[in-house]
Amino acid sequence: MSVAQQFEAANAQYAASFTKGNLALPPQRKVAIVACMDARLDTARALGLEEGDAHVIRNAGGRVTDALRSIIISQQLLGTREIIIVHHTDCGMLTFTDEVIRGKVRAELGQNVDYISFLPFGDLKQSVLDDIKILKESPLVLDVPVTGYVYEVETGKIVKVE
Amino acid sequence: MSVAQQFEAANAQYAASFTKGNLALPPQRKVAIVACMDARLDTARALGLEEGDAHVIRNAGGRVTDALRSIIISQQLLGTREIIIVHHTDCGMLTFTDEVIRGKVRAELGQNVDYISFLPFGDLKQSVLDDIKILKESPLVLDVPVTGYVYEVETGKIVKVE
Repeated sequence: MSVAQQFEAANAQYAASFTKGNLALPPQRKVAIVACMDARLDTARALGLEEGDAHVIRNAGGRVTDALRSIIISQQLLGTREIIIVHHTDCGMLTFTDEVIRGKVRAELGQNVDYISFLPFGDLKQSVLDDIKILKESPLVLDVPVTGYVYEVETGKIVKVE
Repeated sequence: MSVAQQFEAANAQYAASFTKGNLALPPQRKVAIVACMDARLDTARALGLEEGDAHVIRNAGGRVTDALRSIIISQQLLGTREIIIVHHTDCGMLTFTDEVIRGKVRAELGQNVDYISFLPFGDLKQSVLDDIKILKESPLVLDVPVTGYVYEVETGKIVKVE
């Protein structure tokens, strides 16, 4: 069974007891979360989200520069007024540099991706502070509360950075 | 209590019974999911994901062009070999055009964002087909199985597009 087929089977169970068919489009808690795509982080379970609560934007590293399009849509069209950033311990982004992955893509795929910034980081806490600063300074983002956390994959805890 | 404080309280409960502190960094089911940020979609519950299973990449619309950096990292550095796309009914991306949101940003923030493509779409099923095609044709993405679904926010069901 492919993973897609496993997802279909699991979804049939989810849908069988689904009771949330009347939720509104705009997030009820007026918040957008920007988190890493890491498999170990379940944003809903870890933060107590129910369906309908929050926009969940996720990418490699939970970097805000790669989330700007989504944040603008979230704020301008769907009314969110708070942003939460979640990076995490043992992140893959701590393990490479732009040069390393560009070299790998050149070797494996024969493609030059020197124009792509992969947004790795060397200091986890600083990466959260950097992303808060980028949001605070961006003229495209509303002046809303921004809180940044490090999620500990070892303990399941979020630790506030700022 | 701010939303951030509510998340901290919910997380304390999650962490209190956390038992998954020894999971590996690479996704166990070797799959990357690209899904919309919509608040009504809980990717983990709807697809039966446990912590450690899958990369979860989410953005406005679940568009793959905005997920490329993350997909390259997922495949080249963390070994995923299957991609699942999840768009959904009643998506905000069906409700505007680039011109509309660019005008709104100009009016509300005084900024010109004509250089940003916000990736809205007029046809939901076609948006999934378009994103599958983009992945299949991209020289930066490995030739892996790609399956696209529409999640029905009314029923909780995923419906396979291709």
